[in-house]
Amino acid sequence: MTSQPLPLSHVKISDAFWKREMDLVRDVVLPYQWDALNDRIEGAAPSWWMHNMRAAARSVAARKAGGPYVPHGRPDQIHIEGPDPASADPDAFYGWVFQDSDGYKWIEAASYQLALKPDTALQARVQEAVDAVCAAQEADGYLNTYYTLNGIDRAFTYLKDHHELYCFGHLIEAAIAWRDATGRDDLLNVTRRFAACIARRFGPGKDRGCPGHEIAEMALFRLYEATGEQEWLDLANFFLDVRGTEPSTFALEENERRKREGLPALPVTASRYVYYQAHKPVRQMREATGHAVRQMYLCSGMADAARVNRDGAMLAACEALWSSAVDEKMYVTGGVGGTHVGEAFSLPYDLPSDTAYSETCAAVGLVFFARRMLQLRPDSAFADVMERALWNTVLAGMALDGRSFFYVNPLEVDPAACREDQRLSHVKPERQKWFGCACCPPNVARLLSSLGAYIATQSADTLFVHLYVGSEIEAVLSGKRVRLSLDANLLRDGVIRLSVTEGEAEGTIALRIPGWADGFRLDAPGRPCRTQDGYLFLSGRWRAGDTVHVDFPMPVRVLTGHPMVKETAHQVCYSRGPLVYCAEEKDNGAYLHLLQALPEAEAQVAWETIGSLRLPVLKVPARRRQIGTGGLYRPWSVPDTEDTSLTLVPYFAWGNRGAGEMRVWLYD
Amino acid sequence: MTSQPLPLSHVKISDAFWKREMDLVRDVVLPYQWDALNDRIEGAAPSWWMHNMRAAARSVAARKAGGPYVPHGRPDQIHIEGPDPASADPDAFYGWVFQDSDGYKWIEAASYQLALKPDTALQARVQEAVDAVCAAQEADGYLNTYYTLNGIDRAFTYLKDHHELYCFGHLIEAAIAWRDATGRDDLLNVTRRFAACIARRFGPGKDRGCPGHEIAEMALFRLYEATGEQEWLDLANFFLDVRGTEPSTFALEENERRKREGLPALPVTASRYVYYQAHKPVRQMREATGHAVRQMYLCSGMADAARVNRDGAMLAACEALWSSAVDEKMYVTGGVGGTHVGEAFSLPYDLPSDTAYSETCAAVGLVFFARRMLQLRPDSAFADVMERALWNTVLAGMALDGRSFFYVNPLEVDPAACREDQRLSHVKPERQKWFGCACCPPNVARLLSSLGAYIATQSADTLFVHLYVGSEIEAVLSGKRVRLSLDANLLRDGVIRLSVTEGEAEGTIALRIPGWADGFRLDAPGRPCRTQDGYLFLSGRWRAGDTVHVDFPMPVRVLTGHPMVKETAHQVCYSRGPLVYCAEEKDNGAYLHLLQALPEAEAQVAWETIGSLRLPVLKVPARRRQIGTGGLYRPWSVPDTEDTSLTLVPYFAWGNRGAGEMRVWLYD
Repeated sequence: MTSQPLPLSHVKISDAFWKREMDLVRDVVLPYQWDALNDRIEGAAPSWWMHNMRAAARSVAARKAGGPYVPHGRPDQIHIEGPDPASADPDAFYGWVFQDSDGYKWIEAASYQLALKPDTALQARVQEAVDAVCAAQEADGYLNTYYTLNGIDRAFTYLKDHHELYCFGHLIEAAIAWRDATGRDDLLNVTRRFAACIARRFGPGKDRGCPGHEIAEMALFRLYEATGEQEWLDLANFFLDVRGTEPSTFALEENERRKREGLPALPVTASRYVYYQAHKPVRQMREATGHAVRQMYLCSGMADAARVNRDGAMLAACEALWSSAVDEKMYVTGGVGGTHVGEAFSLPYDLPSDTAYSETCAAVGLVFFARRMLQLRPDSAFADVMERALWNTVLAGMALDGRSFFYVNPLEVDPAACREDQRLSHVKPERQKWFGCACCPPNVARLLSSLGAYIATQSADTLFVHLYVGSEIEAVLSGKRVRLSLDANLLRDGVIRLSVTEGEAEGTIALRIPGWADGFRLDAPGRPCRTQDGYLFLSGRWRAGDTVHVDFPMPVRVLTGHPMVKETAHQVCYSRGPLVYCAEEKDNGAYLHLLQALPEAEAQVAWETIGSLRLPVLKVPARRRQIGTGGLYRPWSVPDTEDTSLTLVPYFAWGNRGAGEMRVWLYD
Repeated sequence: MTSQPLPLSHVKISDAFWKREMDLVRDVVLPYQWDALNDRIEGAAPSWWMHNMRAAARSVAARKAGGPYVPHGRPDQIHIEGPDPASADPDAFYGWVFQDSDGYKWIEAASYQLALKPDTALQARVQEAVDAVCAAQEADGYLNTYYTLNGIDRAFTYLKDHHELYCFGHLIEAAIAWRDATGRDDLLNVTRRFAACIARRFGPGKDRGCPGHEIAEMALFRLYEATGEQEWLDLANFFLDVRGTEPSTFALEENERRKREGLPALPVTASRYVYYQAHKPVRQMREATGHAVRQMYLCSGMADAARVNRDGAMLAACEALWSSAVDEKMYVTGGVGGTHVGEAFSLPYDLPSDTAYSETCAAVGLVFFARRMLQLRPDSAFADVMERALWNTVLAGMALDGRSFFYVNPLEVDPAACREDQRLSHVKPERQKWFGCACCPPNVARLLSSLGAYIATQSADTLFVHLYVGSEIEAVLSGKRVRLSLDANLLRDGVIRLSVTEGEAEGTIALRIPGWADGFRLDAPGRPCRTQDGYLFLSGRWRAGDTVHVDFPMPVRVLTGHPMVKETAHQVCYSRGPLVYCAEEKDNGAYLHLLQALPEAEAQVAWETIGSLRLPVLKVPARRRQIGTGGLYRPWSVPDTEDTSLTLVPYFAWGNRGAGEMRVWLYD
């Protein structure tokens, strides 16, 4: 029984906490990012997005006017360092090879906001961006500023590292969001023409090739589902089917490149492309490996494929990859990517806290994957992970004021070590304003702006409520339209109220039983009810005025890691509802590793202000280990400790009060 | 009251354990290394040592015969990859820029063996090596095959990274050892001529410059003390005094190099040369930093300077560097170097077990430093560290059969992780046969072969016994020669017997009270006795037949790390006498991190055969944590465990029974 997300305009979020986050994206993040795309932020790395689009448009226009093609660089770089934007060559490409995607993500996020609330000024800005993209399209539909400016004849020759299909995937997402929000199909038509250009080149009987950084797969399934046009489904399936098969298309590309450089050819085997998840055919994959964002995006596309094509082998691969990612390789914060080497999944159970990668984008990708698994098979385990990633790592990626961002989300930070130890050079103890490689901020923006697509999904006769985010939902139950009001405030408690505000229908509303809940108390007199796969299925006829109350008790939970996780041995972490907590130096003094939690002692919830938010913190009895006497190595004795009390703050709120130590896991 | 080591020929080692180690070096290691120096070991990286010497000798001879200088390479590389030796260009230099030092270390080690026991065949081999070196010397005394072959006009222009003065230091050590063993001064004269060549170039009023990799300093002090020639003392002092002063000589060199390459100059400040310990003047140094071997060698030279020059400021720096290295940055195994980034000291208390560097050479250097601190100021704390480094990390560096070596000495190994995790790429789970950069094997060989120089030192009226290694010692007490027999077998117990076997003298014999001893029981009736700085001072008249018994009780000690060491939190390690123990998969099964020690339970000593050695192992009651049920993160509960018993083996003996997991620190 597969299900589909609801249109964004059918889920009006009213939740006190999440509404604020989404408004922050609209009011702070999107304007800031718009300035970034236009290189107007002093002291921040330039984005070059609009610059590159305008330069590409001029190149295209000049040729349409009969001029010759003039390349402005060499088409074999990954990153082209730019000067100060003021003194840049107006006709040259600058920045990363995937720079186009930054603006596509912005268009997508801004469009989601427009779907929620019309805003003439914002719409005008998005139109400006859309127009810039449309103008940069080549006559044959090709659209990528890097190759347009650096060597159009080399387009599609280095898919492994050159992100053309990655940018294409983001373009699809942007175009559909913009069309859905405004009804305008300018960008969608441009996207269709680019897609057609790609489909002329790649496919059965044509060139083999697949994206070096996945996303086009899931985007093409979306394009297919949004338009019903079979060719995009075919292209999506082709990209998945060719991936990891022999001879490796990446190896062939690489050898072409080596030939140009006079280097000897390498063996044409797929096995060395683990980083790209191109080391074996996708249906044979069982372990989450390589670059974590790529892996999550691929999994999302595979889950779409399993659902759309009813492909059992693909589903089996998805289930195995899910289990590998979340049962063996996920941080308690819902982050994935245990090693900075390749920004990648590490070995099973290797989850270091201090050198963690746990990229914000990878958690965003895990949310994508989880929702798609839920569409395939409603099971609260998927929703638990989706909620964990969202409430913890995704939120932590953005400062409470929306003005700075984490790319890497460690579970233990010592700012002095981050400064001095090169093994921690990827870990920043404070959020950064903008990144030269700015994938995370716009990814957070587009996810938060489309949160409505994750709260619930619906099948023909069932509405599944996966996330308890207060909202007004317009759903269709057995063909009849009903309006529902979902009341929730998970910062406070697990009390949920769902009432029908309009309409009447027969059908089932399935409410997720969160993994963090200590059972549930249901108040729905006379309503037929059963539980299955972690959902509470309430059926019967729904009429305006019908109300269901459920209380999911939300005790403070002291968690421990699987014994195979070395990093968490003798350590515990605190959690309540969807929130994971952490200790910060600001509240608890320096040397947080000297603190010893008392897992059997009772924790109290208190409310404190962090940034401008009132947030539930935990007050926990603990002990502080004393330095004592003796040298670096000393005879063992029962550790000398002093009683103390800790204040733990939600992980998502850490690092909002200046630099300092932070720890999620505390010694017991 | 400073003291001096005894001549090697005055300390005949009879200790059952150490005699075997030394014989192993003579019978296995040195012949193997000789083959390595001559590129005769199949499957091992070629050394190129003899090749380079012979090539340089031909170059020198050709010019002496009136020929022109013909360089064979570019003089700006650190490592010159060679082909198979059979097809090498006979006139070209191959290998690392410091390749000359490999043979010098071999000459040194072999000479120590010759001092202990004449051996015509070995002496002939050493003479062959010595002759090869002598023939490679330039007419002006310069001696370095890299520059002779690649560009003699560029000699001394890149001291920072080009190791000429490092090779020079090792040449001095070799020359003195060879002279002391055989009375032959061929190599010493060559060394003097090279030293004079260096002294013509560098010194007050001449060029500024100092070694990029230290060792020349300590070697020059030795040359001065061996010859009484003031100029070598002056050169040693110059190298120490110029180090770390502004403008940085390394920065000036680097800028010359950059100028040749057309790169802009960098600021001429010392501060960026921490890796080289050239970031500040040596007397201002207080923290052990940078490349650990370099730091230990520098400290050894500084301690020599403090003693020879009676330099209080230098002594203060040595004391501070000692404390930083051993009280904050030393592994329990006596290894130093917490990070592979720069093979360097990490931050205080940062001592990761699995990613440890703990290079064998750095432990050798710590032994050098410790002996020199003991010469300055007898304090058993120095000897404790010397013994710890020697018995654990230095010994672990070599397989029990002398046929393979560790460069890196981790305290926790999981072979699967070493194979797959690039963050552990420097950690080998099994000893290697030979290294392209083969600093460690010959360093172990020269230290073990000269062990007699570390057992005892003497001042005018006192013989200090620092290490309990069974031996026959010829000492001078208040001008009178006495022969002593030192009986000890620390593998078995801490029972020491010291008897005078020949001669009669008035004076003091100071026996170290080991830090691992649980007090002591002295049996020396009527002998005046006092304790100070961890030594037991026994004075009076000593006659043949006089015997002193001391029993240093040697309980199994359960150690814990300083609370500031995060890595050892909730962990203990087992130790007995000088030995640190570890658990191996071979004895205890896989997943050693699941084992929990019971620090209060009694451990038993048992004897088992490892390799061909009978060694004391420990049998320790313990528990094995059960995997239990539940996911990656689960509610905390008292861990479910199963009673078990562990077998712990001496750390130095690990990895001699095939690849497997190993852990020094066990959870409590």
